[in-house]
Amino acid sequence: MPEAMNIETVRALARKYRNWGRWGATDELGTVNFITPEKIAAAARLVRQGKVISLAIPFDQNGPQSGYGGRNNPLHFMLQDGGDVASGAQDFIAGLRYCDDAITMPLQCATQWDALAHIYFDGKMYNDRGPAEVTSSGARRNAITALKDKIVTRGVLLDIPRLKKKPWLAAGEAIYPADLDAAAAAAKVTIASGDIVLVRTGQMREVRERGSWGQYSGGPAPGLSLTCAAWLAEHEIAGYATDTWGTEVIPNETPDVFQPLHCVAIVNMGMLVGEIFTLEELADDCGADGVYEFLFVAPPLPITGAVGSPINPQAIK
Amino acid sequence: MPEAMNIETVRALARKYRNWGRWGATDELGTVNFITPEKIAAAARLVRQGKVISLAIPFDQNGPQSGYGGRNNPLHFMLQDGGDVASGAQDFIAGLRYCDDAITMPLQCATQWDALAHIYFDGKMYNDRGPAEVTSSGARRNAITALKDKIVTRGVLLDIPRLKKKPWLAAGEAIYPADLDAAAAAAKVTIASGDIVLVRTGQMREVRERGSWGQYSGGPAPGLSLTCAAWLAEHEIAGYATDTWGTEVIPNETPDVFQPLHCVAIVNMGMLVGEIFTLEELADDCGADGVYEFLFVAPPLPITGAVGSPINPQAIK
Amino acid sequence: MPEAMNIETVRALARKYRNWGRWGATDELGTVNFITPEKIAAAARLVRQGKVISLAIPFDQNGPQSGYGGRNNPLHFMLQDGGDVASGAQDFIAGLRYCDDAITMPLQCATQWDALAHIYFDGKMYNDRGPAEVTSSGARRNAITALKDKIVTRGVLLDIPRLKKKPWLAAGEAIYPADLDAAAAAAKVTIASGDIVLVRTGQMREVRERGSWGQYSGGPAPGLSLTCAAWLAEHEIAGYATDTWGTEVIPNETPDVFQPLHCVAIVNMGMLVGEIFTLEELADDCGADGVYEFLFVAPPLPITGAVGSPINPQAIK
Amino acid sequence: MPEAMNIETVRALARKYRNWGRWGATDELGTVNFITPEKIAAAARLVRQGKVISLAIPFDQNGPQSGYGGRNNPLHFMLQDGGDVASGAQDFIAGLRYCDDAITMPLQCATQWDALAHIYFDGKMYNDRGPAEVTSSGARRNAITALKDKIVTRGVLLDIPRLKKKPWLAAGEAIYPADLDAAAAAAKVTIASGDIVLVRTGQMREVRERGSWGQYSGGPAPGLSLTCAAWLAEHEIAGYATDTWGTEVIPNETPDVFQPLHCVAIVNMGMLVGEIFTLEELADDCGADGVYEFLFVAPPLPITGAVGSPINPQAIK
Repeated sequence: MPEAMNIETVRALARKYRNWGRWGATDELGTVNFITPEKIAAAARLVRQGKVISLAIPFDQNGPQSGYGGRNNPLHFMLQDGGDVASGAQDFIAGLRYCDDAITMPLQCATQWDALAHIYFDGKMYNDRGPAEVTSSGARRNAITALKDKIVTRGVLLDIPRLKKKPWLAAGEAIYPADLDAAAAAAKVTIASGDIVLVRTGQMREVRERGSWGQYSGGPAPGLSLTCAAWLAEHEIAGYATDTWGTEVIPNETPDVFQPLHCVAIVNMGMLVGEIFTLEELADDCGADGVYEFLFVAPPLPITGAVGSPINPQAIK
Repeated sequence: MPEAMNIETVRALARKYRNWGRWGATDELGTVNFITPEKIAAAARLVRQGKVISLAIPFDQNGPQSGYGGRNNPLHFMLQDGGDVASGAQDFIAGLRYCDDAITMPLQCATQWDALAHIYFDGKMYNDRGPAEVTSSGARRNAITALKDKIVTRGVLLDIPRLKKKPWLAAGEAIYPADLDAAAAAAKVTIASGDIVLVRTGQMREVRERGSWGQYSGGPAPGLSLTCAAWLAEHEIAGYATDTWGTEVIPNETPDVFQPLHCVAIVNMGMLVGEIFTLEELADDCGADGVYEFLFVAPPLPITGAVGSPINPQAIK
Repeated sequence: MPEAMNIETVRALARKYRNWGRWGATDELGTVNFITPEKIAAAARLVRQGKVISLAIPFDQNGPQSGYGGRNNPLHFMLQDGGDVASGAQDFIAGLRYCDDAITMPLQCATQWDALAHIYFDGKMYNDRGPAEVTSSGARRNAITALKDKIVTRGVLLDIPRLKKKPWLAAGEAIYPADLDAAAAAAKVTIASGDIVLVRTGQMREVRERGSWGQYSGGPAPGLSLTCAAWLAEHEIAGYATDTWGTEVIPNETPDVFQPLHCVAIVNMGMLVGEIFTLEELADDCGADGVYEFLFVAPPLPITGAVGSPINPQAIK
Repeated sequence: MPEAMNIETVRALARKYRNWGRWGATDELGTVNFITPEKIAAAARLVRQGKVISLAIPFDQNGPQSGYGGRNNPLHFMLQDGGDVASGAQDFIAGLRYCDDAITMPLQCATQWDALAHIYFDGKMYNDRGPAEVTSSGARRNAITALKDKIVTRGVLLDIPRLKKKPWLAAGEAIYPADLDAAAAAAKVTIASGDIVLVRTGQMREVRERGSWGQYSGGPAPGLSLTCAAWLAEHEIAGYATDTWGTEVIPNETPDVFQPLHCVAIVNMGMLVGEIFTLEELADDCGADGVYEFLFVAPPLPITGAVGSPINPQAIK
């Protein structure tokens, strides 16, 4: 258990691990820059079994959101459905009949990437940019579109509940750098530059066993301790994701900063952060075959000006 | 130029190439079943340069849709933006500041997969299912969710304008099986079971050079002739996609059936069909390095009950 | 307490009070036909104090809906906001600055009229029309647009809790014809042809005092007994509304028909039904001045094909 | 034709006719304060024929919007439709069957009121309020909700094309105070405090006869000259509306201020402004019976934080 932390701790970490300018003043990729062509090619060579596992939860009205801050669950509408096919409503079309649909959803409603324009700390987002870059018309800089062809690399699963020999971590239970190291050792993987690290807390399994989302969205949760900042930076990972709403331990360790690791990692490192991944099937599979590394492909939708994107991440082994 | 075709031609092709029951009465994958673990592993071995190309157009209000049939372009809304960060509207949050957003869009508005529940012919969709399976609440069968971990395979680009030595095919210009064979030969690839074939017509380049979508959505277009049905079936491809609104040549060759190849391929073969891909960067790249095959990863969003999905397909070389 | 009722009771009432054809085979107004020019002019003469009371609840995300059946609460988005004004994002406009907004909402999410295309019983809606009249593209007949200039008449408040000397009726407490008569007598009004009758149950007050909607949407509620059907028909009222989600007592009195009075009144009489009105301010005012009748103006939005409409009803005294 | 005007003209008019503080520092009603109880009662006495005319255009995807600035036309979705009724998809419900629907629309998409939070000039909106009052969460001050029970008064139609003996005014044709006076004289009405004045340009008739909206939204239009500012203020009208997109003559008379009358009237007078009214049926009726005054009831939907509202205004004679 680390000593007490507060906004000054966050600021010190922010300064220490700040990557602003590291890849140039116009950079909008941040740590995704660690993914090199060699890294991509090497990651593809991890595919041996021809097995694909989706890490996305269903996008529907039964999702985790409560509507807080305008984050509701997806609303799916049919523009044309089977009733129209059956009733003759489409008889003006020659031969063919069809169904069509639409969706209204927050981009952060379910399995998602945060864009670098998503988070601000001390008035700035990644690469020393101010909030005027994001208007009601969307983000002019650090939008998710910068990543449209960038999220192909090695993925590594760190299964913390398996390490701790429990079904899931408890709400409020922090994950420390030593846990990450121990999970990597147990998985027989060495975290390397350009990796995307998937940290399983097991909270998604808890939700499923309980049969309700409860306070999953924004409530107490297991997750990364702020003290993982150095670990994230020093391993030069391209990004990380968890099976929780916000990746960090909640209650947060800093009483005067909400989601402090977001402030350090996203804003200062320029790190790719993923949330609300489901890692259950992947964890079962990795546990069974002992292989915790895989080709990881998780392209965002290139929504102009977006500060996040719904995704369906693919782990390919 | 083939002889005159009509609804009976479509019905004959439908019967001849019908895959209903081929993979069992409960199958919802159709030709995606041709993608085997061996196919996936082999496709991954095509990744040598570590290069990734996105095949999605931007998702925004400048998209191709006209609103016809309720298909409007995406509407992107900010739930929180930089103005809120700057004005103090988020001062109730400790330390962190953020932007958040939402989208309203038809699932078929831009780069997309059609689900097998999208198209009906003679009262049925794929695998002998009737329209009652798709209500206002969505599709109970043949929804896009069935494909959430299935679209990883070899992709092949067939560049027809390059073959024809023209910048793009004209509206109404049909692509025939011999064209597909010639393009494959020129690309030095042999189409194989489980491939996803990307057929470039160049219409996206025409749109860009003209600076407006014009009648791209639903208007006259180059595309596959109905006579390609046999080619699609006999090569056992998993799916195909084009850089046009509807993949088929428009005006259609059958006066009494709109989009007849949809009726044969999607409804009867159970084929995966992709639309509104941008193949320009990929074509330039393949033309430059002479490599027209690649790992292709294009997961749909697992939207419950959806009959299509926006996608950001990744060609990885 | 009436004897046990079931679907045959509903069918008998439906036959007895059916108005199909009464105003012609093409009629889409139903009981609103009882509002004559003389009625409108007389209603206007009730305006003496120049007082206006709104009967609508706020349209926002704190509304009564739970998302059940796709009925979520309104989502309000800013297309341009003060942050854009302040940040210079609108500096491309000469001089003027502005804010703009948008909404996504079910038409039945808050204070509303049901259109005659909203409800079906034994396969039909009002005036012997079948469900094929309402496709995914909306209602071709009995849509809310028919009422765009029709909802101006005398309104009468029947305050049942005041009659019963209690703050509100309990969930499951039925209102019978004798209660309506007694409330009218206490209010010194005679219900007349063309009136719109507002029946207060007090449930909205209960909700406010409790500080949460609880099961307001679709849960147990006070409301009209099915035995009020004769009363509604014989008084030739143009419509009625309540301060509850569904106007009828829930649990319903018919185990085999949900909302049986809807089936009799809307489907067979062609009656205008309003829901989720707030009658608290009006009841306080009527209690204070002893005047329970007023000019009532509640135009729906003329949304093409809609089966309901959000409204802001005005009681003018 | 007045002499050349520019931003200094606008500022001078703004100062001269500014009502900030006139009704108190907390006022959010502006000129609607001119509507007194006596005014409302007198307006009701204008109802003699029992005739109601709706002044709203249809809300649907065929509306006037082009999508510019995020203003698209309404999207209407069915949550349940006749196909569901027919197919058995609702057989889980006892007896009753139903249709339900939803809408996505800009609040300024069709017939509408501008809220006082809609427009800013020289950094302020009505009553000396700054843009920080309107965040992505909506307007805290000057929202449309302030008017939820305030728009009941005398309406007066000023039919300018009738005065000018032409079917409609041309795009770019300005309406001057003398025109308003002449139209009032022709209509035998004296504009009085608290009136809402409906100024017909005939552009809606032009649109209908042409069969397309053309540049109706934001393009060249007939409308009020900036020189009408004094007329609007000195008559103490509560508000005005036109049958055009923006009420003002376009091209505007001030090269350095877009919609200058908005800046004077809405921002400084606090005036209620309505747009995209259809006045055709009303004009025909007034022409026929010679009565150009009526009870006017046009309640906004009380959408929390909204800067405008769709409306269906009712002219009642």
